Amino acid sequence: MPVYKAPTRDTRFVINEVLRLEDYAHLQGFDMATPDMVDTVVDECGKFCSEVIAPLNRIGDSQGCTRNADGSVTTPDGFKQGFAQFQESGWGTLSSPVEYGGQGLPHVLGFTMEEYLCSANQAFAMYPGLTNGAISAIVSKATPELQAKYLPNMVSNKWLGTMNLTEPHCGTDLGLLRTRAVPQADGTYLVTGTKIFISAGDHDLTENIIHLVLAKTPDAPDSSKGISLFIVPKFLVNDDGSLGERNAVSCGAIEHKMGIHGNATCVMNYDGARGWLVGEENKGLAAMFIMMNAARLGVGIQGLGQAEAAYQNAVIYAQERRQGRALTGPAEPNEKADPLFVHPDVRRMLMDAKAFTEGMRAFALWGGLLVELAHKAETEEARQQADDLIGLITPVIKGYGTDKGFETAVNMQQIWGGHGYIAENGMEQFVRDARIAMIYEGANGVQAMDLVGRKLPANMGRSVQAFFALVDGECAAASADAQLAPVAEKLAKANGELKAATMWLMQNAMANPNNAGAGAHHYMHIMGIVSLGLMWLRMAKVSAAALAGGASEKAFYEAKIVTARYFAERFTPDAGALRRKLEAGSATMMKLPVEAFATA
Amino acid sequence: MPVYKAPTRDTRFVINEVLRLEDYAHLQGFDMATPDMVDTVVDECGKFCSEVIAPLNRIGDSQGCTRNADGSVTTPDGFKQGFAQFQESGWGTLSSPVEYGGQGLPHVLGFTMEEYLCSANQAFAMYPGLTNGAISAIVSKATPELQAKYLPNMVSNKWLGTMNLTEPHCGTDLGLLRTRAVPQADGTYLVTGTKIFISAGDHDLTENIIHLVLAKTPDAPDSSKGISLFIVPKFLVNDDGSLGERNAVSCGAIEHKMGIHGNATCVMNYDGARGWLVGEENKGLAAMFIMMNAARLGVGIQGLGQAEAAYQNAVIYAQERRQGRALTGPAEPNEKADPLFVHPDVRRMLMDAKAFTEGMRAFALWGGLLVELAHKAETEEARQQADDLIGLITPVIKGYGTDKGFETAVNMQQIWGGHGYIAENGMEQFVRDARIAMIYEGANGVQAMDLVGRKLPANMGRSVQAFFALVDGECAAASADAQLAPVAEKLAKANGELKAATMWLMQNAMANPNNAGAGAHHYMHIMGIVSLGLMWLRMAKVSAAALAGGASEKAFYEAKIVTARYFAERFTPDAGALRRKLEAGSATMMKLPVEAFATA
Repeated sequence: MPVYKAPTRDTRFVINEVLRLEDYAHLQGFDMATPDMVDTVVDECGKFCSEVIAPLNRIGDSQGCTRNADGSVTTPDGFKQGFAQFQESGWGTLSSPVEYGGQGLPHVLGFTMEEYLCSANQAFAMYPGLTNGAISAIVSKATPELQAKYLPNMVSNKWLGTMNLTEPHCGTDLGLLRTRAVPQADGTYLVTGTKIFISAGDHDLTENIIHLVLAKTPDAPDSSKGISLFIVPKFLVNDDGSLGERNAVSCGAIEHKMGIHGNATCVMNYDGARGWLVGEENKGLAAMFIMMNAARLGVGIQGLGQAEAAYQNAVIYAQERRQGRALTGPAEPNEKADPLFVHPDVRRMLMDAKAFTEGMRAFALWGGLLVELAHKAETEEARQQADDLIGLITPVIKGYGTDKGFETAVNMQQIWGGHGYIAENGMEQFVRDARIAMIYEGANGVQAMDLVGRKLPANMGRSVQAFFALVDGECAAASADAQLAPVAEKLAKANGELKAATMWLMQNAMANPNNAGAGAHHYMHIMGIVSLGLMWLRMAKVSAAALAGGASEKAFYEAKIVTARYFAERFTPDAGALRRKLEAGSATMMKLPVEAFATA
Repeated sequence: MPVYKAPTRDTRFVINEVLRLEDYAHLQGFDMATPDMVDTVVDECGKFCSEVIAPLNRIGDSQGCTRNADGSVTTPDGFKQGFAQFQESGWGTLSSPVEYGGQGLPHVLGFTMEEYLCSANQAFAMYPGLTNGAISAIVSKATPELQAKYLPNMVSNKWLGTMNLTEPHCGTDLGLLRTRAVPQADGTYLVTGTKIFISAGDHDLTENIIHLVLAKTPDAPDSSKGISLFIVPKFLVNDDGSLGERNAVSCGAIEHKMGIHGNATCVMNYDGARGWLVGEENKGLAAMFIMMNAARLGVGIQGLGQAEAAYQNAVIYAQERRQGRALTGPAEPNEKADPLFVHPDVRRMLMDAKAFTEGMRAFALWGGLLVELAHKAETEEARQQADDLIGLITPVIKGYGTDKGFETAVNMQQIWGGHGYIAENGMEQFVRDARIAMIYEGANGVQAMDLVGRKLPANMGRSVQAFFALVDGECAAASADAQLAPVAEKLAKANGELKAATMWLMQNAMANPNNAGAGAHHYMHIMGIVSLGLMWLRMAKVSAAALAGGASEKAFYEAKIVTARYFAERFTPDAGALRRKLEAGSATMMKLPVEAFATA
């Protein structure tokens, strides 16, 4: 059975030493996040996830969820008890708003909890995980009455939330949706329709479930401009907060999926269910995007979470499994064979994973800091800069993070050889679970188009220009340091590829927007490489300073510098290849007619 | 449920027009393979696989194999009947030796059957598939008596064969194996030990199963130089060919795996089972490699097979599923949305798949031709050249073919969005089934080391020099043709990267063999790119000539030229990035101590 130990030292390094959270202590919420407090939260989070939730991961996969004859849904053995502990200990409330009972700590801590929980058990993590997006939408758009009625119990995870977007015929293109919401005299709506792929759609973890549902009112425009968002609780909530009658919403079926078996992915049937409008009619897409942006960052973190868990188990196996001899001669001559660890091709995969997971952790937590600074930074200018950056990198955290997270899980499975293909060992579950993150909350091709089609051109390219300047500035500052220069040099080169690719898009996408679409996925990956490269430069810089200052954990900081160099050597070369592909444009790609793809 | 239609037109293009099999009609076996004959065999093969075997693929996955209380193994519903049809119609005998009842047709036809069967149902294909390797070993190494006793029934697929190499503690490093074979007075051996991961280890498809088992005799050296190969039949075979008593070999358990559920992957227990030596004592590794080389080519074809099947279903979905609008404006304004096919990012994935599958098909079938020419070409020189080339490209067909085959299956699943994650739709099965091919018959890292450590330096680099010259020659010949020049130019550049990478290895691997190990996987992929690039150049050349000659299937040949250009634009740039990674060497990769990988 796979094991998981939360990478707390690495998280503390990022939060305290790289992001230096204490430098923001003058901002609301940050004052509580002293290094000591961070250390305690991170360690306790890690302990809880490793000890209580991780042991439920295999059983969740093998048992799955059950829809009972009466339509109720039962989660796998142990999930109910695990969730009760999670809820009671308040782990879901770390970064939730204080006014509704949350702890109001910086998002970097909430993100850390999301990572650990996902490494321990992604299917489990999704139950509370989707609630965060639902909370964001209600906080931003709902009336004070609705907020008062739902938020305290959602924030405390006494109730969980869901996101109901997809229908059988539409996912990405929500303008096509058919679920109807008919206004009633009392101001409520009756919601009717079928939603599919609803994660945590029904379960036995909480007494109530608050569904956020996209639907169209009778006179709504027949496009994405005619979508409204509704709160549809599983049980109606009385004015005194007690639960009333069961609403007309039910789970019609549980999907059989490739992975995340422990999460109930439901077909949800709404048969005139009572709903309450969130925000204005026909403005549901904006509300949905609030929910979605939070969820996208969370999904990027899932990519990291699965990669980390798979990596840890590959590291253990690479030490325990003996096969063959080191190319340079027996490493352990007294044994009949050397551990896998001596083989360069195994080390390549481990170093790739190490460079990705540690770099991605810094990237995601930087994103968590930016989310906060966009609201809380002191000046309007600083808030705008943070908002620009987080808007730009959100699709990269999601798209690059999950593409590479899956790839990492696959490589870690590869280290296990044939044993990695066997269910009991758990390596193949990481791969199956990681796979979904590339698809949901906007498939990665959609993320790429969000980046290239919306985020790049916004405000005349202000965000991406700021990103270029940030990278160039840090590279220039590092170029005089002999330890950092090789890292900075390769990062600057990759940033040059990103700039060239951006320029090419600007010059060619106007004439033919397919040129943007044809290169979007490549572009997202170049930006992912540059982003992680920037993180590695920062981590190397902090580590070099720590070593120069005589830090006691010498091996830890030295490993950071070596891994930064590895990233520079083995990740940045792809930026050039991706730019060349992007610059090939759409002409050849789009040339063939549909018949040319048919099999004869 | 996924569909499959054998790509017969494309196969015929490769065999008749690109490889031009009829040019070899003066060689033994080729005389029968006239274009008409090829067309008939290919079409009938395709029909059988599409109509009889493909419909068993989903049920095989969902039902799996059963080990009954008495230790016998039952295959999924329909497999027994499907196999009976397969066996009766002689599809397994296409390229088997005539002297044992085979049809003696060129391997390109046997390979075609393997591809189609694997696309239709990989788990099913593995039952007869492994028999081919077993036959090769017996043909090469066994005594005439053993050949006479076993080959006719194995060639006819009345009996199937297995390969028993792996043990719980060893897979790649066979020198560690513990299974013992004790010689008896009558010249037989008693074999005792446990083998794991034995594909098709037991089943109900045939009355007998012929296991080829690696074991050590009592006085054998304690290394890979002490391995011997044995025939251990499930039922002993009497001198008159009738079945005798049950041998002391049994299936101890069936593994629960990520995929290929329809194939019984068995733990096999040998408890003093009667065995017959194949070849000489302690020379089993050489015999094993004969079996293995055949199997490796077959596994490369599995990568192609899964990619092709996934691709076909993605093409259908991309036409049927409507979501969003073309970036250039509505393609079908009368519909509420355009098909996925209009989106460049979807087309990118389809074109990637098309360029890979068609290129890989040509590459694998070229390999099939070389296997034959290595034995049958007229001159010693020509035989040597073919043998050099097939030795060189075998690990590339296996390693590159399965890495890219899996990647393609993942991308095709991505086109299906959330529906690709749902079991019923079958896309996720392609991914799970394709995954094993990167692992078994030598994990792809082992293939890479075979290429770099054994095939490159052999005969002072004669093979790879011949490969370079071949590519350069064909590029030069094409450079004057305006249609082919852009393809040839990018291929020549990729070949330049391959040459540079080879040179770097020659200069740096001697000083430190870890430099070879650190770059081996990258090197294998560069060679894969150049190999498929060469195939695309050949296919473009043939197509241009066909068009110039007024061929009637204009669209078919034009698509080949467009796809060749796409390959040049979007695959070859990776060669440069891979070379840069390879040239980074092993210093940084191998620098960190094992403790640096532990989680704290």
